[in-house]
Amino acid sequence: MDGAGTIPLPTFDDVLDAAKRLAGRAVVTPLLNAPLLDAELGGRLFVKAEPLQKTGSFKFRGAYNRVSRLTAAERPSGVIAYSSGNHAQGVAAAAREVGCPAAVVMPKDAPALKIARTKAFGAEVILYDRWKDSREEITAALQRERKCVLVKPFDDPAIIAGQGTVGNEIADQCAALGVAPDAVLVPVGGGGLISGSALALRHKLPAAEVYACEPENYDDTAQSLVAGRRVAVEAKTPSICDALMSPMPGEITFDLNRRLLAGGFVVTEAEVRRAVATAFVHFKLVVEPGGAVALAAILTGRYSARGKTVVAVCSGGNADPQLFAEIMREAA
Amino acid sequence: MDGAGTIPLPTFDDVLDAAKRLAGRAVVTPLLNAPLLDAELGGRLFVKAEPLQKTGSFKFRGAYNRVSRLTAAERPSGVIAYSSGNHAQGVAAAAREVGCPAAVVMPKDAPALKIARTKAFGAEVILYDRWKDSREEITAALQRERKCVLVKPFDDPAIIAGQGTVGNEIADQCAALGVAPDAVLVPVGGGGLISGSALALRHKLPAAEVYACEPENYDDTAQSLVAGRRVAVEAKTPSICDALMSPMPGEITFDLNRRLLAGGFVVTEAEVRRAVATAFVHFKLVVEPGGAVALAAILTGRYSARGKTVVAVCSGGNADPQLFAEIMREAA
Repeated sequence: MDGAGTIPLPTFDDVLDAAKRLAGRAVVTPLLNAPLLDAELGGRLFVKAEPLQKTGSFKFRGAYNRVSRLTAAERPSGVIAYSSGNHAQGVAAAAREVGCPAAVVMPKDAPALKIARTKAFGAEVILYDRWKDSREEITAALQRERKCVLVKPFDDPAIIAGQGTVGNEIADQCAALGVAPDAVLVPVGGGGLISGSALALRHKLPAAEVYACEPENYDDTAQSLVAGRRVAVEAKTPSICDALMSPMPGEITFDLNRRLLAGGFVVTEAEVRRAVATAFVHFKLVVEPGGAVALAAILTGRYSARGKTVVAVCSGGNADPQLFAEIMREAA
Repeated sequence: MDGAGTIPLPTFDDVLDAAKRLAGRAVVTPLLNAPLLDAELGGRLFVKAEPLQKTGSFKFRGAYNRVSRLTAAERPSGVIAYSSGNHAQGVAAAAREVGCPAAVVMPKDAPALKIARTKAFGAEVILYDRWKDSREEITAALQRERKCVLVKPFDDPAIIAGQGTVGNEIADQCAALGVAPDAVLVPVGGGGLISGSALALRHKLPAAEVYACEPENYDDTAQSLVAGRRVAVEAKTPSICDALMSPMPGEITFDLNRRLLAGGFVVTEAEVRRAVATAFVHFKLVVEPGGAVALAAILTGRYSARGKTVVAVCSGGNADPQLFAEIMREAA
C-alpha cells in the first residue's frame, strides 16, 4: 500500500481489512460509561478505553497492521521507528509477535516508563536529544545501514487503517448499545488515529461529527483545519502530552482529515490534568495526559455534552507514576 | 429466596438467573492480560477488571439482583444497607435504577470518595463510628422504623448469586479465549463474591482451583477454612483494605466456601500497595487496595503462576486519590 510520490489514500475497506488482521491480536477495548459523570454533564458520555489495549495505547493496532505485512525477504532485517514512546511500544510488540527485530529511536526525555517498556517488548532503543538532533536523520542513517523497513508513526496507509479499527469498534459498540453518538472526539498528534477512525465512522455512523483534540502549543491540526492547508507549529515548548508533540499534520492524514473532520478543539495543560483525575475517579482508568485531551475537551465544555451523546477516545495510559501522583494530589 | 432460620443455599441456576437479570444493566467487564507481566511471572495471568463495573466495584451485581426482586408492596419504603462503601454504592445505584429509596449506614472513616459517590447515586447516608457503635443495631432500628428491606452485604442467596456472575463471566471469557485456568484467585471480605463465583466455576471450569485472598489481620476465611468452621478475627486494626474488614465469614457464604474453595492466601499491606502499583503500570487499571489482594497473592508467589494460567479478580477501584498518590510515589 505504501509508496513514494503519489500515495494512495487508505479507504474504509482497508480499515475492515486491518480489523480482520487484528482479530485475536489486539484487544477490542470496552466503551465505558459513568452514570455520575453523565449526571454532571447533562448528557451521555462514552469513553473508548485504549489504555486497555496491548502495550497501553492504540498504537499497537497500526503497528501490527503494518509489521505483519512485511515480506519474507524483509523480515530478517526487521523494522525501525521513531517515537516518543507509544508507537515505540506498538512497533516493538508487533515485531515480537511477527518474529522480526525492531529498533526504535526515542527522545532522551521520553517518560522512563515508556523507554523501559519498549525495551521490555524486545526492541533496541536508540536515544536522541529532542531539542538538538533530527530523529529523521538518525533514523534514515540507521535504515540505510541495516536495510530495515521504516514503520512511520502516522503518515502511512497501513498505519492509518490499523488505527482506524478504533473508530470501527466504536461504531459497532454504539450499535450494540443502541446508541447514536452526536460526536466522536479523538486525541490528535500526527492524525493517524483520527483519520482512520473517521473513515470508519463516516461509513458506519455518518451522522456523528468527528473532532480533533489537541493540547495547547501543539494545535497544528486545529490550525490546519482552519487554514485549509497543513500548518506547522513551533514545537519549542515541552508538554505533559508527550504523545502529541507532533509539529505538523501528516500529508495523508491531513488529506483525509480536512474532508472528514468537523473541527478541532484545543485544551490547556491544567484542563488535561483535571481530565486525567476525572478518568481516575469515574472510569477507574489510568489515562496519560496526551490520551486525555478529548475527555478534557468535553469536561471543559469546548464541546458541550448537554443533551448529547458523545464518545471520547482515551488513546493511551502509559502515564509516568510520579506525574500521575502529582495530579492525584492536586485532585484530592 | 431469603428467609429466617433455614436459608436455602444458592445454586448455579441462581447465578444463571442473576446473569439474565443483570444483562444490559451490569457491565460485562473485560478479562485483561499484560504480556510484559506474563514474561516476569513465567505464566499467564488474566485480570477480571471489576473496577470497570458500574459503581466501580462488583457490588452492583448482587445489589441489583436483590433490589430488583423487591415486591410492589416493598418498593415504596425502599431498602437499607450497611457498608464501608462499595456495597453502599451498589445498593444506591440499584435502588436508583429500580426507582426506590435507599439508606446506607456507613462508617465515618470510610473513604470520602465512597461516601460522596454513595450520596451522588441518590442514597441517604447515615454515618457511625466503626470502633464504638454497632452498625447492625443502628440499621435494625432504622429498618423497624421505616419498614424497609435490609440488603445484606453478602450473607443472602440473591446477593451471592449476583456476585457469582463474575465467576460465570470468567468461565465464558476463558472459553472464548481458549484458555483453561489452573486457578482463580478472589478477594474475600464476607465471602459473597467468591462463593457465588465458585458456584459458577465449579460447573463451568471444574478443573480450576478457587482461592480466597485476604489482607493481614482480616484473614478470617483463611483461618476458617483451616479450622473447618467459622472463625472470627479481632478486627481491631485499621486496614488500607477498607472493603475487606469483615471479621467473620457469613453463614451461607462459608457453608459454600468450605466445600468449594481450595484454600486461602494472606497478604501484607506492603504487598497490596505493590499490587496496586503493578495494576497501574501493567493493566492501566485503578484498583483500590482491597481489590488488589488476589493480584498481590500472585505477584508475591503465594500462588506461583510459573507455568500456570491464572485469573485474579480485581474486585473494585474506588481508591482514595490521596492514598493512590502515595502508592504511586513509592512506586516511581
